[in-house]
Amino acid sequence: MICPYEVSLNPPSLDDPKADADGLLAALAEQHGVTRVDVDLESLREISSILRSQDWKVQVCLRGRELIAIGPRFSSTLGLAVDLGTTKIAGYLVDLPTGAILASGGIVNPQIAMGEDIIARMARAKDSPSEAARLQELVVSALNRLTTDLCKKIGSDPQEVVEAVVASNTAIHHLLLRLPVEQLALSPYVPVVKNALDVKAREIGLSLASGAYIHLLPNIGGFIGGDLVAFLLATGFHKKKGVALALDIGTNTEVCLSVDGKLASLSCASGPAFEGAHIRYGMRSCHGAIEHLRLEDGGVRYQTIGGNPPVGICGTGLLEAVAQLLLIGILDRKGRMGEHPRVRLRDREQEFVITDGDNPSDLSEITITQRDIQQMQLAKGAIRAGIRVLLEISGRTEEDITEVIIAGAFGSYLDIGSAITVGMLPRIPLDRYRQVGNAAGAGARLALISRRQRAEAQVIAQQVTYVEPTTTPRFMQIFAQSMYLE
Amino acid sequence: MICPYEVSLNPPSLDDPKADADGLLAALAEQHGVTRVDVDLESLREISSILRSQDWKVQVCLRGRELIAIGPRFSSTLGLAVDLGTTKIAGYLVDLPTGAILASGGIVNPQIAMGEDIIARMARAKDSPSEAARLQELVVSALNRLTTDLCKKIGSDPQEVVEAVVASNTAIHHLLLRLPVEQLALSPYVPVVKNALDVKAREIGLSLASGAYIHLLPNIGGFIGGDLVAFLLATGFHKKKGVALALDIGTNTEVCLSVDGKLASLSCASGPAFEGAHIRYGMRSCHGAIEHLRLEDGGVRYQTIGGNPPVGICGTGLLEAVAQLLLIGILDRKGRMGEHPRVRLRDREQEFVITDGDNPSDLSEITITQRDIQQMQLAKGAIRAGIRVLLEISGRTEEDITEVIIAGAFGSYLDIGSAITVGMLPRIPLDRYRQVGNAAGAGARLALISRRQRAEAQVIAQQVTYVEPTTTPRFMQIFAQSMYLE
Repeated sequence: MICPYEVSLNPPSLDDPKADADGLLAALAEQHGVTRVDVDLESLREISSILRSQDWKVQVCLRGRELIAIGPRFSSTLGLAVDLGTTKIAGYLVDLPTGAILASGGIVNPQIAMGEDIIARMARAKDSPSEAARLQELVVSALNRLTTDLCKKIGSDPQEVVEAVVASNTAIHHLLLRLPVEQLALSPYVPVVKNALDVKAREIGLSLASGAYIHLLPNIGGFIGGDLVAFLLATGFHKKKGVALALDIGTNTEVCLSVDGKLASLSCASGPAFEGAHIRYGMRSCHGAIEHLRLEDGGVRYQTIGGNPPVGICGTGLLEAVAQLLLIGILDRKGRMGEHPRVRLRDREQEFVITDGDNPSDLSEITITQRDIQQMQLAKGAIRAGIRVLLEISGRTEEDITEVIIAGAFGSYLDIGSAITVGMLPRIPLDRYRQVGNAAGAGARLALISRRQRAEAQVIAQQVTYVEPTTTPRFMQIFAQSMYLE
Repeated sequence: MICPYEVSLNPPSLDDPKADADGLLAALAEQHGVTRVDVDLESLREISSILRSQDWKVQVCLRGRELIAIGPRFSSTLGLAVDLGTTKIAGYLVDLPTGAILASGGIVNPQIAMGEDIIARMARAKDSPSEAARLQELVVSALNRLTTDLCKKIGSDPQEVVEAVVASNTAIHHLLLRLPVEQLALSPYVPVVKNALDVKAREIGLSLASGAYIHLLPNIGGFIGGDLVAFLLATGFHKKKGVALALDIGTNTEVCLSVDGKLASLSCASGPAFEGAHIRYGMRSCHGAIEHLRLEDGGVRYQTIGGNPPVGICGTGLLEAVAQLLLIGILDRKGRMGEHPRVRLRDREQEFVITDGDNPSDLSEITITQRDIQQMQLAKGAIRAGIRVLLEISGRTEEDITEVIIAGAFGSYLDIGSAITVGMLPRIPLDRYRQVGNAAGAGARLALISRRQRAEAQVIAQQVTYVEPTTTPRFMQIFAQSMYLE
């Protein structure tokens, strides 16, 4: 896709006053047989000074027949793969010739300051062009920071990043490109475009190599974007036999059901509860977060990330806590908290005390409130309802499912047993579940290094039937049922 | 090159939630058989709102396989041809389907505020990136104003301008694109690029249709650009038999000699004297400028543009005045002013009085000073030297010339007889001279409407041998000789 070439040429003279770019292209043709090359404007602006500073021996990068970068000989040719989530951004710096991951890292999507979920952000973007511009600038500046940080880790520079691939949901995709979202937020919820796009990085303010492009993976529908496509691509999900289920759990959870290769998908707003938001002592999964929890002999045993003193509870810890409370009968199926020595009333709300901060090694008290339980029920109910709706449409039942693939940071660390206990996931044998980490990021990396994988992604996007849950009559009913703990 | 298509489509629905752009492209394929179309990003941003406001019946413009504009059905498809000179900018609004000129107009190149000639402007651009940016902004904002004004004349809008062609000298070309000029200003004076370029208008700040391109005609060398190419293209000069001479007279004068189809050209800095600059009572050719002048019976008869009372003297008037002064013996061959009732000394400088402002119909006094004569000699000497150098290189003499084609505003109005008298042009029969107006603009218009003409322009640019006068040993000697009046 991107081809680097080492080129050397004679400097111009009064007898041979060739133009810099023309001389470079002539040398490229002569030394590598590559002809009919166009030069990107920004790269054109750099050619004269780089040729002179590098003594007329340079490396150029071609993308198809377009010269998109020029630099010193034997420069790295890096690619950037991004899983651009509603809440989190994961980036991977890839050595394009080998496909090796050279660095990776994650940051918060700063658009969160303008709305926690995509509905809120779309409303802001619709409000005024300046709000839309601000939303774009926020995410682009985050991407620029992330790229710079990743490059620093390997002693490189964003100028060496010659291609990027972004996987994101449709709304984030539109906000990144500053495409209008009016029609996306209203029935029938259509994107401006579903097909994959190649956009000059600089056109959206992203600072990579002078003429670098961003490839945006294709969208499936109004609320399912290239992130699910990347997930399916990375796991080969679209080629699975039998009845298989794919879940990418995040602020929005994408659910995809495959029945003998026939794919249908929907997105449900599972909210940021699993990221720790709207939970009294909720927090992201970082040091000091309670990630595992067991209730034994009337006491609480927990484990924090990094073994640090507990400072809060993250999504997996919350899920396990609710499962435990249910198992020992403190919660009923509706999620109501009953009597227990560790249950107390505070501010007119029941809460279960994990630690009251009296233990000298604990930094603070941590509880789970009745409202926290409700948030969890909403989140897990949305996911389960999504699964049930797709099964119902295809005439299958949960028992028919032969394989479940779960992606996403939370999805990769969650305890499947607990998720089944609270009724987030179907009660089928544990060995049918597979947790795959950031599959969207893995798919973005595949698309970064292979033209064939991009073509495959386009096929996947067209292959998946998009289901709009809010317009599916039974959805609300199924959602209501799915809120129950099991 | 640019193809408009009328397209209509069904709006999306919950049963058919197709993306707006995808639906549009599918309809385009179905209704016109055009497939594999990419959509420009800025056009993509407009699609959703225009489809809805136009009730799903629109016109799209394709440039090759790229959708570059979308608008109401049966919109105009306009093109803009620009002769972008060092001092003046001439623009033509063209109906692309027919090639008809719908409006035309000219404005001053506002870069003049940052340097009268290209040498001064290149020095500014080299000084700092912000100066280079300012030079670009000045000319782009002038182009935007000119486009808006031309569109207004026909009740249209720059949004309907889907393609532009710019012909200019190499330095102005580089400043417009913000290409570096360091290497252009130093021996061996090489451009960044000579080949023709297509650049998105918005990339340089020009506001046309959403995805419109500017085509920049190819450069011939460091100081000869697409404006001479356009001139040669418009006049078919490159196909002429015999010994033919082409002159585009302006602040820089391009001289091209064809000897049986072998072309050589150079550019000489003739300066802005013919535009009225550095001339005591000099002015541009507008109302009130003395454009013709005869000395008869000791008196002065003159004619002003528009017949208005005289307020100054423009290039053609100055040329005729010098010719007359020479003919009646007030000037000697070196340009020194002799005795005469109308010659007086003021501020220690000789001057010839055209009008002393005593005539009630005259607004002010107008004279021609000794320094004015010198300015004129420098300008005419540079042009004549350019002609002589090219002839000398090709082993021909002035008498061999079978045809002279003169372009440029001044060149089209100048009195050939006077130009021969002062020694600006070779003393050959008048019927070998042809004055063709703004040929660069005409060539730009040809390139605007025809892909074949663009290919032809590229061939011309490669066909012309570029001569660098400052590095031609005999140039200075020939220039010194050419300053004499004949």
